[in-house]
Amino acid sequence: MKQLIYADNAATSKLDMQAFEAMKPYFFKEYGNASQSYSFARSAKNALKIARDTIASCINASADEIYFTSGGTESDNWALKGVINDNDDSCSLITSQIEHHAILNSAGSIQKKGISVTYLPVDLTGTVIPASLNQCISDSTTLVSIMLSNNEIGTIQPIRDLVAIAHEHKALFHTDAVQSVGHIPIDVKELNVDMLSASGHKFNGPKGIGFLYVKKGTPIKSFHDGGMQEFGMRSGTENIASIVGMATALKNNCEQMKAHEKHLYALEKELLEGLTNAGLDFIRNGAVNHVPGNLSLSFKDSNGEMLLHRLDLMGICVSTGSACDSNNTQISHVIKAIEVPERYAQGTIRISLGKDNTSEEVQIIVDCLKKIMSPLN
Amino acid sequence: MKQLIYADNAATSKLDMQAFEAMKPYFFKEYGNASQSYSFARSAKNALKIARDTIASCINASADEIYFTSGGTESDNWALKGVINDNDDSCSLITSQIEHHAILNSAGSIQKKGISVTYLPVDLTGTVIPASLNQCISDSTTLVSIMLSNNEIGTIQPIRDLVAIAHEHKALFHTDAVQSVGHIPIDVKELNVDMLSASGHKFNGPKGIGFLYVKKGTPIKSFHDGGMQEFGMRSGTENIASIVGMATALKNNCEQMKAHEKHLYALEKELLEGLTNAGLDFIRNGAVNHVPGNLSLSFKDSNGEMLLHRLDLMGICVSTGSACDSNNTQISHVIKAIEVPERYAQGTIRISLGKDNTSEEVQIIVDCLKKIMSPLN
Repeated sequence: MKQLIYADNAATSKLDMQAFEAMKPYFFKEYGNASQSYSFARSAKNALKIARDTIASCINASADEIYFTSGGTESDNWALKGVINDNDDSCSLITSQIEHHAILNSAGSIQKKGISVTYLPVDLTGTVIPASLNQCISDSTTLVSIMLSNNEIGTIQPIRDLVAIAHEHKALFHTDAVQSVGHIPIDVKELNVDMLSASGHKFNGPKGIGFLYVKKGTPIKSFHDGGMQEFGMRSGTENIASIVGMATALKNNCEQMKAHEKHLYALEKELLEGLTNAGLDFIRNGAVNHVPGNLSLSFKDSNGEMLLHRLDLMGICVSTGSACDSNNTQISHVIKAIEVPERYAQGTIRISLGKDNTSEEVQIIVDCLKKIMSPLN
Repeated sequence: MKQLIYADNAATSKLDMQAFEAMKPYFFKEYGNASQSYSFARSAKNALKIARDTIASCINASADEIYFTSGGTESDNWALKGVINDNDDSCSLITSQIEHHAILNSAGSIQKKGISVTYLPVDLTGTVIPASLNQCISDSTTLVSIMLSNNEIGTIQPIRDLVAIAHEHKALFHTDAVQSVGHIPIDVKELNVDMLSASGHKFNGPKGIGFLYVKKGTPIKSFHDGGMQEFGMRSGTENIASIVGMATALKNNCEQMKAHEKHLYALEKELLEGLTNAGLDFIRNGAVNHVPGNLSLSFKDSNGEMLLHRLDLMGICVSTGSACDSNNTQISHVIKAIEVPERYAQGTIRISLGKDNTSEEVQIIVDCLKKIMSPLN
C-alpha cells in the first residue's frame, strides 16, 4: 500500500475508535427518537443528557448552556445571526480580518443588510491587539467575534483581554473555538465569553456535529425553528449517535491533552529543526502562543500549491490554507493580514500534526520537503 | 428480554444495515475532508458525488439540485427563510394549518418580521383544497409551502394541482416531503415543485442528515455562510459518512418501495380489521390517499397519553402526535384542523408501521389495545 502521512488534522481528524464504539448502539439498538416519551426512547434521552454533561464539563460550562448543532459553521452562523438584529441598523459587529470564512461570510451577509461591520487588523504574529478593539468599539457595538485560535497559523488570541473590553461597552463576545476545543484547555468562565463555537470532527469526533456554548441569559434568537429540541433554540431530531461520538472524543482528548501537547510540541521542534538543518529558507508564521501541531510555513521563492501537490504524490497530506480555501490558489486572507513578505507568501503550506503522527513521519516530511526544494530537483 | 414492538416509524426509523456498512469506511479509513485537493480526499469527494447522483435519481432531479443539510428541519427553515425577503413587506407566504412545526414555526418567525402569512385550512381528511389556495393567492405571494404528506395522519396532498395554482401567480412552491421520501414515489419534475425537503432518518438513513432539492434557477439565498461547500449555498465540512448512509438507505427503500407498500397496506388492513372485530369504537383519521403504514386512530372516550403509556408498559412504541409534540398533552393542531369529534379527539394515537413490522406484531398491538380498552380493565 502507498504511504499515507496525514498531516492535515486542522482540516479534519480521524474518528476516535472509542467514540465510534460509543456511537454504534444508537444506530441499531437504541435508535429511538430522544423526544419521544415511551421507555424505548429513554436510552437515547439519557445518552443525550450524559453527552451534554460531558461536553459542558470539558469547558467548565453548565449542561443547559450547550446547544448541539451540525458543526462549527452552523454554530458560527447562529452566534452572529442570532444576536445581530438585522432590522436595527444601530447594531454593529466587530470581528477580525483573520477569522474563518464561517464568520467572515456570515459577517458579510449581515453587512449586506445595512449593519456596520468592523474587521480588526492583526499584528505580524496574527494577534488581535486589544488596543485596536478598544479604539473601534462603541456603545452601539452589539457583538464582538474573535476566534480563539486561528485555523491557518494557530495563533491563540488574548480572549480574556478582548472580552473585558467588549463587556465594558456592554457588547456580547463570541469566540470561534473550532480549532481550539479538544486541543488547548478551555474554561468558558475564565475566558468569560458569552458564546463559543466548536466542531466535533476537529477533535476526532464525527463530522456533521458541533455545538454552540451560550452563556445563560445571553439574548440570542433560536436558529432552526421547529419541534423545540435543544431547549427550544435549535430544532431538529437529535443526532444522538454523533452527539455521543463527539462527547466521547472530546472527553478522551481533554483527558490526554497534556500528553498530546507534549508530543506535538516535540514533533514541531523536530520538524522545524529538520527543515533548518536541511538549509531550507522559510518563515514559520504565527505566534509563540499557538495551538499544538499547527505549523504554517512559508518557503522562500516557492509555491504552496506546487508543494501540496508534490507532497501529495509522496503520500503526504498538507494544506495550503484552510480546507475551505483549497480550491483557491490566491494567497489567503490570513497570510495577507500578517504581511508575510512577498517572496515567502506564495510558498505557504500548513502542516497540522495530530496525536497519531509520529517522529518517523515528521522525518519523512522533512526529507520530502528537502527533496522537493532541492535545486537539482 | 422485554418485548419491543416499534410502531413509531414516522418519528424515526432503524438504520438500514447496508447504509451502516456503506458509512463505516468514511469514519476511519477515508476520513479526508472532501474539500481538500490531495488524493487522500478523492475517495470522500467521489463518495459525495455518487451519493448526490443516487439521491437525485431517486426523485428524478439533477445532482446539482440536491443540497445536503443536517435534516428536515434545516431544509424547511432554509426553504422558507431563504426565499422570503423579510425586509420586503410586499412578500407573502402561504402554508397550511397542518404543517410540521419546522414549517409552522419558521413561518411564525417570518410573520414576526412583518411578512403576511396565510395558513390554509384543510378538509376533514386533512387535504388542502386547491380552490382554497386559489382564493388566497395573489401576485404578491412569494412562496407557497404545503407538505407532501402529513406526519400525523399520513394524508397525501394534491401537490401538482397546488403547484399549478402557485405558478400561475408566479409564486414559488416548496413541499416538506420528510414523511414521503423513501415511502411513496416522488418525481420532482412531475410534481413540478421548486423545492422539496427530506430527512435521512425517516427512511432508515442516519439522523442528523437530510437534503433540500432546489430546482435550478430558483432564487434562494445561501443558508449557512462559510467555506462555500454545497455549491456555495450551504457551508460546512461535508458529513460524508451520513450522506453516504442516507443515499444507500434511500436507494434501498426506493428499490423495494412496491414491496414495502404492499406489506404495509396488508398490515394496516389487519390492524383495522382486528380493532373493528374487537368491537372498539374508533375513527381512522386522514385520507384514502396516504403514506403506507401511517395510522392515526382516535378512540372514543379515551385518552391518547394514557394509551401511549399503557402500550409502552406492554413494550409497544406509538405516538400521540409527532415526536416533536410528545411533551404536549393538548390535542394536536392537525387533529384540531381536521375537526375530529370531541369525544374521539382526545383518544388519538399514531401507529406508524415500517417495513420491518410483522403481522404477528400487529396482532399483539390489536390484543393490547383491546385489553387496555376493555371495560373490565
